[in-house]
Amino acid sequence: MKVGILGGGQLGRMLLQQAVNYNVETWILENDATCPAAHLCHHFILGNINDYDAVLDFGRQVDRLTIEIEGVNVDALEQLEKEGKLVFPSAAVLRIIKNKISQKQFYKQHEIPSPEFVVTQNLAELMQHKAFLPAVHKMAEGGYDGRGVQIIDTETDFSKGFDAPAVLEKKIDIAKEIAIIVAVNGKGQTAIYPAVDMMVDPYKNQLDYQVCPAEIVEKIIWRIEAIAIRLVQAFKSPGLFAVEMLIDRGGDVWVNETAPRVHNSGHHTIEAHYCSQFDMLWRILLDYPLGNPDAISPSSLVNLVGAEDCSGPVHYKGLEEVLKMENTFVHLYGKAETRPGRKMGHVTILAKDRQELSYRAHKVKEAMKVEAEKK
Amino acid sequence: MKVGILGGGQLGRMLLQQAVNYNVETWILENDATCPAAHLCHHFILGNINDYDAVLDFGRQVDRLTIEIEGVNVDALEQLEKEGKLVFPSAAVLRIIKNKISQKQFYKQHEIPSPEFVVTQNLAELMQHKAFLPAVHKMAEGGYDGRGVQIIDTETDFSKGFDAPAVLEKKIDIAKEIAIIVAVNGKGQTAIYPAVDMMVDPYKNQLDYQVCPAEIVEKIIWRIEAIAIRLVQAFKSPGLFAVEMLIDRGGDVWVNETAPRVHNSGHHTIEAHYCSQFDMLWRILLDYPLGNPDAISPSSLVNLVGAEDCSGPVHYKGLEEVLKMENTFVHLYGKAETRPGRKMGHVTILAKDRQELSYRAHKVKEAMKVEAEKK
Repeated sequence: MKVGILGGGQLGRMLLQQAVNYNVETWILENDATCPAAHLCHHFILGNINDYDAVLDFGRQVDRLTIEIEGVNVDALEQLEKEGKLVFPSAAVLRIIKNKISQKQFYKQHEIPSPEFVVTQNLAELMQHKAFLPAVHKMAEGGYDGRGVQIIDTETDFSKGFDAPAVLEKKIDIAKEIAIIVAVNGKGQTAIYPAVDMMVDPYKNQLDYQVCPAEIVEKIIWRIEAIAIRLVQAFKSPGLFAVEMLIDRGGDVWVNETAPRVHNSGHHTIEAHYCSQFDMLWRILLDYPLGNPDAISPSSLVNLVGAEDCSGPVHYKGLEEVLKMENTFVHLYGKAETRPGRKMGHVTILAKDRQELSYRAHKVKEAMKVEAEKK
Repeated sequence: MKVGILGGGQLGRMLLQQAVNYNVETWILENDATCPAAHLCHHFILGNINDYDAVLDFGRQVDRLTIEIEGVNVDALEQLEKEGKLVFPSAAVLRIIKNKISQKQFYKQHEIPSPEFVVTQNLAELMQHKAFLPAVHKMAEGGYDGRGVQIIDTETDFSKGFDAPAVLEKKIDIAKEIAIIVAVNGKGQTAIYPAVDMMVDPYKNQLDYQVCPAEIVEKIIWRIEAIAIRLVQAFKSPGLFAVEMLIDRGGDVWVNETAPRVHNSGHHTIEAHYCSQFDMLWRILLDYPLGNPDAISPSSLVNLVGAEDCSGPVHYKGLEEVLKMENTFVHLYGKAETRPGRKMGHVTILAKDRQELSYRAHKVKEAMKVEAEKK
């Protein structure tokens, strides 16, 4: 079987790391020959994943396709589906999800609880929604890892909004952010991972650390799982889906957004779960039985992101100290250059109880900094 | 750091799989462009690992070197050491171990308990050792996975012996075969994995399945660990060493042979131990702190070897059934062609008790066969 992956970043890298366990011919399309995944596949094709012809030519050489980022040329994937190629997730799902307006409309149409919203085409339209504040403004396309999202609490924040198609969402009084991963195979069977608590850095709007399993009362866990299953079934596509949800102070659950792919919130599954999210996606791609999403151990996960005011050849300060810590697993993404906020690696911690997991996550964060090499 | 690996088989493949977690530039030398490791490194160099010039040229392009098989050109590695390259294990250790005569002499010299032996240069010499029988005849060089070993119980078996340099070892009344892996870093610090029980197929003289931890009384465990540590310290070289030992019915422990590299008997460490043997070797190669060799869970391991009377494009019969089994991890080595006895993959099983581990190892062996595709 020949499987093509659109994108060669760290998600592609970890997918290929897991592919080593199976007999599969791997192909990567990416326009950076030094990307994290470039040297780990059978065939690396230099090309733009947003270019119709590049994606079409690439797809015609493989049997099945998946993505590691939503920002790909969906028209080409649709054409490839017409030609008989299988795409995980389907081009239709990618079209819905890659645009936040259609993603929100999809939730509404399928009665998936998600914060109330209005669509704004430009800044002038945004300014007409004073009564809707406080709210969150999200660019329809191109946002990623905190970029393309702005909090609009009062009229004075309007100027921070986007002068481009976007959604304006009612602000939820957040008690907790969680993420949950659901796998769907070609037969429509599902496997669901335990939800994780996402501790988000309020300044960078980026994951600070996460803990699995999430600390939630059972009644809300049921609600989360029911919503996640209903949502992925509505997509009517095999694939792996990471659903980010907000729990408000009243205990209501709201879908924040969905990623139709392996996701940062699932990296702990490599060591902490019987079947990792990467293994699970390969099982779906190769028509293998779904794996066991259960945890071997509770875990926490710390992202290693480029420090502020540092750009250039990367230096992992404190790496040795973290490598000395027991039951702590370091993953570096092989990116030569660091930039402020850039995801450069992650660390997974296994421990028995939540207190130790949080304590050790903080210890890792203190010990290790992603800096630029001193000149 | 640029690290070169001599050999591109499954051991190289799994080493490269682990290297994905670190920022290291990987190089492979192997004379088969379709070998299991070829597509997983930064630089694949086509060449013969037994050829002086090929190894020398390769080694000059990297900072450090390791091996995945002992049969390499040691002269070139010695020259590279003179030029300042670090080799793990050292060329001196490889020279001792790759020849069974010098390996046995090393054990004797360092008072490492190992079966009594005589050296035979040819069949005529072998036949002079009637009084030494029953014994095991082992070719000095070129033996691997059961090839190059013959049981000589009586004079009538002499004709099965090797007409080439070899050792003739007194036969031990074996109660148990175990293997134990010891890691040694550049500072001489050691980490020792729990010993594993090796269930050897007496017909093929190849590993049938293995269980970790070995079922041995504590007194003998201490003896095993003491011998293993003494042995690797005698080598005076950093590296990872797998020591195969025999326990006789009197409880005495004998070193059978040593592999100065990652080893089949350590594959279960990928899922069942905090730090896998592959991770451990990278930590040694990269001057990182040694990892934790402790088990997360007891485990068993089944090799997937090519069925008898099957040669040609591989078909893994029963793969789906094994992929459905809980807490069972499949590793296929990406070899296109199967041959009788060829190592094509392995399966690791996690379970709480020994009875279940053995039961499930047998279940995997029954469920899965490595056959050739039907024409």
